[in-house]
Amino acid sequence: MDRERFARQLAFALQIDAEKDVLRQTHLSHHGRRENDAEHAWHMTVMAYLLREYSDEPIDIARTMIMTATHDLVEIYAGDTYAYDTKGQETAAERELQAADKLFALLPADQAAELRGIWEEFERNDTPEAHFAHAMDNLQPMMLNDSNDGADWRNRNVAKSGPASRNAVTRMGSAEIADYVDELLDRHVAAGNLRAE
Amino acid sequence: MDRERFARQLAFALQIDAEKDVLRQTHLSHHGRRENDAEHAWHMTVMAYLLREYSDEPIDIARTMIMTATHDLVEIYAGDTYAYDTKGQETAAERELQAADKLFALLPADQAAELRGIWEEFERNDTPEAHFAHAMDNLQPMMLNDSNDGADWRNRNVAKSGPASRNAVTRMGSAEIADYVDELLDRHVAAGNLRAE
Repeated sequence: MDRERFARQLAFALQIDAEKDVLRQTHLSHHGRRENDAEHAWHMTVMAYLLREYSDEPIDIARTMIMTATHDLVEIYAGDTYAYDTKGQETAAERELQAADKLFALLPADQAAELRGIWEEFERNDTPEAHFAHAMDNLQPMMLNDSNDGADWRNRNVAKSGPASRNAVTRMGSAEIADYVDELLDRHVAAGNLRAE
Repeated sequence: MDRERFARQLAFALQIDAEKDVLRQTHLSHHGRRENDAEHAWHMTVMAYLLREYSDEPIDIARTMIMTATHDLVEIYAGDTYAYDTKGQETAAERELQAADKLFALLPADQAAELRGIWEEFERNDTPEAHFAHAMDNLQPMMLNDSNDGADWRNRNVAKSGPASRNAVTRMGSAEIADYVDELLDRHVAAGNLRAE
């Protein structure tokens, strides 16, 4: 073991502990507290494995899982930006690029390049693994929100167009899951939890 | 898509949300709050990928990652048992078996068998993947505790023999990581955070 290399890997592993303090807008099921990024990443990683049969394209499940597990790490420095906060989304890209520079530099150069590459692949969303990772990134909070009778949408007066446009991204990874979500969204419009437009 | 199958998969995915409420004895770095099982599982899943080069045997990294991500799921029903709580450990095995019966039954039969098999493999600890998953299960809280100046050990008056016996298990997966941890434990004995015996 190269102890200097291992020290860098451990420094990174310790730094990402901070992801447990990045709060999302989503609430845990049964009307619970707000979820954090680490919990979200764990949940969608298990779901990626469990639901991989619904990917429209063959995927490397190990690559998909490390992608889902690390896709939000830059938020340790850049913060979480709510999916339907259009103003925040405008500046998020620049903040996240700077965060990536800072975060991945902790790692040995080969792993910095590898993990940054996986994050950039997720951001570009141009591979089967990235498509399915996005499908899980969208399905996981919608599943929780559905279990909470749509409270996260209702309390923020969200219009259907927001989650519907995310579901169009889900469709790039899994048409079957997107079909399910389309029906789910229609149910929440009918129940008054999502504005029709 | 077989909607009945998908409904079972989603019911399982929603049930495991409860893992975010199972608190461990470990505290987050920087003397933070207690960690929960989902955060721990996420952290050791990323670490398994990051540190896979130190596994003494070749491992299937996807199998290792789903194992680390799901190894504590039975605690949703059985609760977390502190590693050095010998009384609790005596009854943990029976409680966890009953929990496994209940939890995995939510899934379609093929996936129930698969995920239960992966959990049983972790418990038996008789494959390269299980060995390395255990190494991560031990290293992750030791890393956090080290970052907190050994407070979790000091506050519970833990003797070195406890973490040392866990590190003997780590050695089955990675002699190099176990060597690092042996030195770490000696430092904490010297600093008075672990009782020598």
